[in-house]
Amino acid sequence: MIDYQRLFEKVQNHHPLIHCITNYVTMNDVANMILAAGGSPIMAQEPKEAEEIAAMCDALVLNMGVLDEKKLEAMILAVRKANALGLPVILDPVGVGASKFRMQSVDTLLQEIKCSIIRGNASEIKVLCQRKGKEKGVDADPDDLIDTASLLADAAALSQQIEAVVLVTGVIDYCINQREVYEIRNGHSMMTRITGSGCMLDGLLGVYAGANPDCLLDASVMAAGVLGFCGEQAAKKCQGTGSFRVGLIDEMSQITIQKIERRMKIENKS
Amino acid sequence: MIDYQRLFEKVQNHHPLIHCITNYVTMNDVANMILAAGGSPIMAQEPKEAEEIAAMCDALVLNMGVLDEKKLEAMILAVRKANALGLPVILDPVGVGASKFRMQSVDTLLQEIKCSIIRGNASEIKVLCQRKGKEKGVDADPDDLIDTASLLADAAALSQQIEAVVLVTGVIDYCINQREVYEIRNGHSMMTRITGSGCMLDGLLGVYAGANPDCLLDASVMAAGVLGFCGEQAAKKCQGTGSFRVGLIDEMSQITIQKIERRMKIENKS
Amino acid sequence: MIDYQRLFEKVQNHHPLIHCITNYVTMNDVANMILAAGGSPIMAQEPKEAEEIAAMCDALVLNMGVLDEKKLEAMILAVRKANALGLPVILDPVGVGASKFRMQSVDTLLQEIKCSIIRGNASEIKVLCQRKGKEKGVDADPDDLIDTASLLADAAALSQQIEAVVLVTGVIDYCINQREVYEIRNGHSMMTRITGSGCMLDGLLGVYAGANPDCLLDASVMAAGVLGFCGEQAAKKCQGTGSFRVGLIDEMSQITIQKIERRMKIENKS
Repeated sequence: MIDYQRLFEKVQNHHPLIHCITNYVTMNDVANMILAAGGSPIMAQEPKEAEEIAAMCDALVLNMGVLDEKKLEAMILAVRKANALGLPVILDPVGVGASKFRMQSVDTLLQEIKCSIIRGNASEIKVLCQRKGKEKGVDADPDDLIDTASLLADAAALSQQIEAVVLVTGVIDYCINQREVYEIRNGHSMMTRITGSGCMLDGLLGVYAGANPDCLLDASVMAAGVLGFCGEQAAKKCQGTGSFRVGLIDEMSQITIQKIERRMKIENKS
Repeated sequence: MIDYQRLFEKVQNHHPLIHCITNYVTMNDVANMILAAGGSPIMAQEPKEAEEIAAMCDALVLNMGVLDEKKLEAMILAVRKANALGLPVILDPVGVGASKFRMQSVDTLLQEIKCSIIRGNASEIKVLCQRKGKEKGVDADPDDLIDTASLLADAAALSQQIEAVVLVTGVIDYCINQREVYEIRNGHSMMTRITGSGCMLDGLLGVYAGANPDCLLDASVMAAGVLGFCGEQAAKKCQGTGSFRVGLIDEMSQITIQKIERRMKIENKS
Repeated sequence: MIDYQRLFEKVQNHHPLIHCITNYVTMNDVANMILAAGGSPIMAQEPKEAEEIAAMCDALVLNMGVLDEKKLEAMILAVRKANALGLPVILDPVGVGASKFRMQSVDTLLQEIKCSIIRGNASEIKVLCQRKGKEKGVDADPDDLIDTASLLADAAALSQQIEAVVLVTGVIDYCINQREVYEIRNGHSMMTRITGSGCMLDGLLGVYAGANPDCLLDASVMAAGVLGFCGEQAAKKCQGTGSFRVGLIDEMSQITIQKIERRMKIENKS
């Protein structure tokens, strides 16, 4: 049983500070989502300050969208510091199959660092496991989850190999560590029609993991469920994808433990 | 006669993938506009991956806002690959008159590459033709279109010279290739009161041209008309410029071929 | 007495062009806020064009969020040109206490340049004065203003030392030059729950100072008051922090001199 109330209160009482090295496309949404959820964001990607910033934070979020060489350098410095301090590190291998540069970058990161949580869509997780596969942009394919069994096997193997929580997002989200498998059925198809749903989830993983570093699997499952629930609510009220994106942040800023306890569609499948 | 239905269905059926090397200011809006219109965006500007990303896409969009040297390098690599593969390339010479750096950059681009569609406001198109003129920021001047005849002559000359579609946006949009001239009267003045209307149009040109590479003039005219129509609708419902920007994306995400066929204000002036 | 009407009409008649070298997180909001207030933004950070862009503008806004070495180089070039031309320069030392890099950067800037207006939260202003203090992210602490007397003494000392207007934002804003102290009570706590309230204020300071370079203190006080009033109005209508952010720009785009004259909560405390 995930103790939603305990996880939630830790966020509200601690207001974790999250160091994000993330992509330019959705940086604003990520910062606003972190604030809406009760955390504080700090975006810093100059290598000269990466270690110092990481050292003052509660969690580090690395998102590989619109990656460049200098940002990769900052990521490595920040994550070494975060590892030394035992901080949760969230890695999103955005579009990892799309280029050799991203593939090599993720290889470098995974060799250099201890990652606590990896979040990706099915294509990205498959690429990480299988080092092959083709990407359709950086957004999830509709058929991403057709072969769930094989995906779950890949995710479990990855989780074993790098000793991290693996969160695979799609129509259904799966969250796995070396021992347990959760299925999260919160969410709405509108989330695939905007850019940044995944990046905002990365930020939210930072918030929940940063405030709850002792239970990363539960924190990851809850973050995915809460964002999915906000998506469900925002979809009911929106006039299209523009107002859906605004509504997603509105809903997060109005979240309560009562809504969470009533509306999580989470199942332990272990 | 532009066959709106055929162009529209190609977008909806093909979901073109658009490689954008664009400015930081409006990157999120461009990505969300592409998604709202039925395409998929991929923003990638690291020179090391520019060619690979371009090669997997249906169109390439280059927007010179907030340009820097490294981004220019990525543009050149991406566009050479796009040219080799025959992909549509859209160029937006944002603020081209504002500095020698931007002027030299556009010179370099136009010497190196084959551009399919150039989109700019009247100041920018004039500068490209005349290599002079003064800019007022990067947004359109109210008096941009005072001398329409001279502007059209410039645009036609530019179109001849670089063998591309030229789309000049303003109170009225003009879309020109070497043989035809279209006038597009869709749009709303609110579009000049937000940043990114032009950049979002660049993305939309990518979507329509990417799905319809065999009829770039029609695709360009239609993209301008559809965005203008969305602007008209969003202006009716908004509470100011903030909600207008949100509404513009809402309207695009709800567009139908019926709305398009009824509401395009497009005239062939050739 | 601040002559709101005169300051406002200068903005509306002149439409000042504002050169912003600002952070990636809130760049879009800053550009849209400048447009909503009646100015024109130009974001340009390539060192090769920094001087030319500055030379065509009415004010220069420097925001140190997500700073990197190249952007610092562009800032120095732009500000030297702005100083040579006598343009107002607004500096926001975002998160200045967070790293040695930011501390050294602000030292470099303040040695190299004449700054007209410095805006920061209490932590940042304290750091600038005292070269110590710890940061909580880059957003204001709730207890930022506990010791108002000491903060005001710091701000006054800073103002004397660098001969600039100092605007300290928080629950109450204070605006100080070498002779006068204003207290601004407009604003709403929702402004601390989004990212970018401070950055948007920087842009607005550019607009008001750019159109009114002869009365920078009055322009700064008014900019803070007007944004605060927009925040009050947006807070009444929003459904959460997402729509609050949209509403803040809506309100600015609908501002009138009547609303301003009726609703400013500004007091001269000198």
